[in-house]
Amino acid sequence: MHVYRTHTCAELTRENVGDTVRLAGWVHRIRDHGGVLFIDLRDHYGVTQVLCDPDSPVFSEVEKVRSEWCIRIDGNVKARDESLINPKIPTGEVEVFIRDMEVLGKADELPLIVFGDQEYPEETRLRYRFLDLRREAMQDNMKLRSDVVRDLRQRMWDLDFREYQTPIITASSPEGARDFVIPSRLHPGKLYALPQAPQQFKQLLMVAGFDKYFQIAPCFRDEDPRADRSPTDFYQLDMEMSFATQQDVFDTIAPVVAGTFERFGGGKRVDAPETWPQIPFAEAALKYGTDKPDLRNPIEMQDVSEHFRGSGFAIFASLLEKDGTEIRAIPAPTGGSRKFCDRMNKFAQEQGLPGMGYIFWRPDNDKAAQVIARINEIEQNSTGMAMIAVKASDGQTIQGDRSEVLGRLRDDLESIEYSVEAAGPLAKNIGPERTEAIRQQLGLGVGDAAFFLGGKASDFEAVAGRARTVIGQELGLIDEDRFAFAWIVDFPMYERDDEGKVDFSHNPFSMPQGGLEALDGDPEAVLGYQYDLACNGYELVSGAIRNHKLDVMYRAFEIAGYGRDEVEKRFGGMVKAFQYGAPPHGGCAAGIDRIVMLLAGEENIREVMLFPMNQRAEDLMMGAPTEPMPGQLMELGLRVVPKD
Amino acid sequence: MHVYRTHTCAELTRENVGDTVRLAGWVHRIRDHGGVLFIDLRDHYGVTQVLCDPDSPVFSEVEKVRSEWCIRIDGNVKARDESLINPKIPTGEVEVFIRDMEVLGKADELPLIVFGDQEYPEETRLRYRFLDLRREAMQDNMKLRSDVVRDLRQRMWDLDFREYQTPIITASSPEGARDFVIPSRLHPGKLYALPQAPQQFKQLLMVAGFDKYFQIAPCFRDEDPRADRSPTDFYQLDMEMSFATQQDVFDTIAPVVAGTFERFGGGKRVDAPETWPQIPFAEAALKYGTDKPDLRNPIEMQDVSEHFRGSGFAIFASLLEKDGTEIRAIPAPTGGSRKFCDRMNKFAQEQGLPGMGYIFWRPDNDKAAQVIARINEIEQNSTGMAMIAVKASDGQTIQGDRSEVLGRLRDDLESIEYSVEAAGPLAKNIGPERTEAIRQQLGLGVGDAAFFLGGKASDFEAVAGRARTVIGQELGLIDEDRFAFAWIVDFPMYERDDEGKVDFSHNPFSMPQGGLEALDGDPEAVLGYQYDLACNGYELVSGAIRNHKLDVMYRAFEIAGYGRDEVEKRFGGMVKAFQYGAPPHGGCAAGIDRIVMLLAGEENIREVMLFPMNQRAEDLMMGAPTEPMPGQLMELGLRVVPKD
Repeated sequence: MHVYRTHTCAELTRENVGDTVRLAGWVHRIRDHGGVLFIDLRDHYGVTQVLCDPDSPVFSEVEKVRSEWCIRIDGNVKARDESLINPKIPTGEVEVFIRDMEVLGKADELPLIVFGDQEYPEETRLRYRFLDLRREAMQDNMKLRSDVVRDLRQRMWDLDFREYQTPIITASSPEGARDFVIPSRLHPGKLYALPQAPQQFKQLLMVAGFDKYFQIAPCFRDEDPRADRSPTDFYQLDMEMSFATQQDVFDTIAPVVAGTFERFGGGKRVDAPETWPQIPFAEAALKYGTDKPDLRNPIEMQDVSEHFRGSGFAIFASLLEKDGTEIRAIPAPTGGSRKFCDRMNKFAQEQGLPGMGYIFWRPDNDKAAQVIARINEIEQNSTGMAMIAVKASDGQTIQGDRSEVLGRLRDDLESIEYSVEAAGPLAKNIGPERTEAIRQQLGLGVGDAAFFLGGKASDFEAVAGRARTVIGQELGLIDEDRFAFAWIVDFPMYERDDEGKVDFSHNPFSMPQGGLEALDGDPEAVLGYQYDLACNGYELVSGAIRNHKLDVMYRAFEIAGYGRDEVEKRFGGMVKAFQYGAPPHGGCAAGIDRIVMLLAGEENIREVMLFPMNQRAEDLMMGAPTEPMPGQLMELGLRVVPKD
Repeated sequence: MHVYRTHTCAELTRENVGDTVRLAGWVHRIRDHGGVLFIDLRDHYGVTQVLCDPDSPVFSEVEKVRSEWCIRIDGNVKARDESLINPKIPTGEVEVFIRDMEVLGKADELPLIVFGDQEYPEETRLRYRFLDLRREAMQDNMKLRSDVVRDLRQRMWDLDFREYQTPIITASSPEGARDFVIPSRLHPGKLYALPQAPQQFKQLLMVAGFDKYFQIAPCFRDEDPRADRSPTDFYQLDMEMSFATQQDVFDTIAPVVAGTFERFGGGKRVDAPETWPQIPFAEAALKYGTDKPDLRNPIEMQDVSEHFRGSGFAIFASLLEKDGTEIRAIPAPTGGSRKFCDRMNKFAQEQGLPGMGYIFWRPDNDKAAQVIARINEIEQNSTGMAMIAVKASDGQTIQGDRSEVLGRLRDDLESIEYSVEAAGPLAKNIGPERTEAIRQQLGLGVGDAAFFLGGKASDFEAVAGRARTVIGQELGLIDEDRFAFAWIVDFPMYERDDEGKVDFSHNPFSMPQGGLEALDGDPEAVLGYQYDLACNGYELVSGAIRNHKLDVMYRAFEIAGYGRDEVEKRFGGMVKAFQYGAPPHGGCAAGIDRIVMLLAGEENIREVMLFPMNQRAEDLMMGAPTEPMPGQLMELGLRVVPKD
């Protein structure tokens, strides 16, 4: 017999009845039923019920056992009474009568309980991560992550990509974020850096002729923490291919991502890759107020400036007289109530805007208004399964499932005579004709609303995007059982800051559309072969076709104010490589942590990481970072600057 | 038609004759045959011959092309003349007549030639790694490495191990080597460290109940460089399992390693895992002078002290009167010539020893001596395939293959009458009886030799081990077509330094054999559940059953002079975890770089790494390490200590 176990805690079935077995695991729960001790013995694989009555030679030992002790037991497998069978677990038909026991590892009083779903402060969970990770939800998340990474790897291999590991200790490469640095001992005063991404190395691999590369790559950025990113490092599925166009990259990675979401998405609908729209950056900004739109939300914003130009709503009318301003509408189907509109207006104020003007359309008849309110309430809240009962306009009760009741209410509404009336302060100011023109442009009807934001797009666009999300959520317009993907393309290469200085707006290594010629025009009009993949409001993938032509590269950097010397100094390895027969190439990187977050239905990245740092970039369990050991900094030729 | 290629450079066959195709790749070689330009166009997959005659519309363009330019060509596939078919490459039956060409990337004059096998200084190769990697041998090594890593992963998954990524930015954990550290920006003056190995994290995973873990893990050590290790980082197949014994770990990892060697070993014989010996550390030291013996070498050293005690060889006899000394013999079958023995003696002197005494056994008859010399020469040098012709003792020529000739020579020797005579200075000093007793103990005969080293084992053992290797190599005793494995077990937990201070000799986290009781005896007698796997003279795998019992751990560290406080300070995370139900667990780590080195037949680790550092820990291509950027150290609260 093996010294620790003959079976895992998920293996015993009715077939084992009569066997003498050995199990090892953790005491999940103990119950004392009339002097008989029932223990749920847990390991990585499952739970087996073991029990000990006073006849057992080790009863007095088993009595001492507490939660989360690690024990080994020997015992006899018996069938449970029919009435005691637990069909929810594979071992539910049997139980094991303990005849011998060994304590493998005792446990002190627990700072957090493994059994059940009790919530604990994150600091406690991170400090005792080894206990926190024993909890079922965390075990599941970590297994999911491991499975997802494996699956992504498999899919890349199946596409003839090979995985190559690129260096982790390398040169500082200023790509936007802050580097973590490593002082050199052999070269005191000099620094290595951890890679923000394997960007340069994967491009060098293409120059070296490797054709198709991928890597599950750790990336390191010394960033200020946020819920959806780690303050130190994250993982990407990084890939690059030679002799490839933007569409080639899409055709390669889309089935990989979709396949993984299909497999691990828990049955949620995954949009088929061939249906993923390619939305130009400018269009995404207009319609969704973000370059990572959540397409589960059907709301699309529109430019309605023309309806306000010279109108009686003086704030917008005078705003529109300034250059570069516009009025944008957020349609809100089923949002046609003053209460809702006021709440959204308040949301915009909380986000730092003066507010959002609104119009909503209602019937001029109370009965119709009541029916519409009932329809909207059902559309926004019910999910289709439960039976619903509401009152019709004649006082009769309508009962049935969601679509049945909605149909009956709509028939009811048809039977009532009413006119559509626009409400809200804006409608009064601009008058019925303009209001009606807006309604028609937005395709809205009775019971719907629209919100309006004005000014320079850059000043309100982000809030408009968030308002679109909140409106979609509150009105129940978002299909929670779907993963909706969209490619965002045609990112601008450059942006101008408030002082008019031109800088790269995204990745400086991307190939400008139109090549050298395009760079001779207005920098802000230059688009790059650069793209993102958005899913449910998150940026999942980001990539580009690279600029492999040195002359174009120098010119592109020159526009952003970097001279030849500066480019050679910062990106020396790559610049040199491009002098020796560089192939056209491009690729992308997919965020592993975000993919797993989405698949696990988590909103905090730390729920899908084994041993994350806290928000102050500390590892509370390991005690990182630590004070230097004596002589450690001296050996590196460094000393701490005394605090004032 | 795709903008860059319709086929790779390895795809076109006779089936494509008549097709118009588009290819992209690098100009491998250009030849001008009577005005027709022949180009070997190369990509990651292969080579296709493309050619351009003066009728081509782009002839004048193609004339300008040089080696390693990256180009795209369009052309017509034609069958080669029967006489010009190249059966060595898959595209050898066709050639492509160029009709259009585009230069995708020009190349400057090359610092190293990709075509052929010309050798370049390592500095040149590393500085232009992107060119060096285009060479066939490097492409093959990198593909092999990628395949090996994939294969190891697959095998671990097949054994129900899951891969989990452990943190790369973590706490300093003094495990023997020097840490690379990362200054914290949010906590100025404090340091993170890169992990020397995921040792603590994998043990924490076991405490967290993950049962079976593996990881292809980067490990970081700030070490002084050596040919077979990187000065910065290396990769391990790291694994750990709960509720496991030492034999369980062997039974798990051995088939993984053997399977990978079978698959990628190029047909070399791989010892079957069930035949791998388990050699106690002490026995390995005695027999092989090392804990990573090359078992392809059949030589086993023996203690022959008794034959020298009180003998006429005063140096050894008086040496043996001191405590802890011994005389060890290295048998050298077929090494029985003065010339060979003198050369080996010189080798020992070069290694810092006074020399190696020797005895060799020869016949007292010149004819027999000649026959033996011929037998030995054939045994040491010929590999079995070629025909051999030698003279027999009667002057006749013997001709045939290796075994035939050896048989005839041995018959010849049988027919000659001679006695065995021991030669060499030692033999004279100790006399014929002792000499004969030594010969018998070592199982040697006429034509063989033995070498002798004396003193404290620790003073000569390493040189003895190297001498064993050199003797085996020079005498042709090593089977180059074999991977020979051995587990080395029962490592001592502690060693005593010259001043008598006891310290851990290997991993402090290993479980001592005999537990707490064993720790109450002589520390130097305590063995650990700790093991290595040796292959062909390299340490491939190292591991242990861990000490998961806190009381045993505290005692083990106490013996090495570390108090409870010190242990808690250094290994706080793990110590805390062991208070909450730690399971028994163990595992090992296999060196990926070494495995690939062995499989690729390389002796320098940099041949199997993509972008290695040089021996001064510099990345010449990327320019790492670099001077700090302005303000970079200040932000970390550090400054450089001025030199002197």
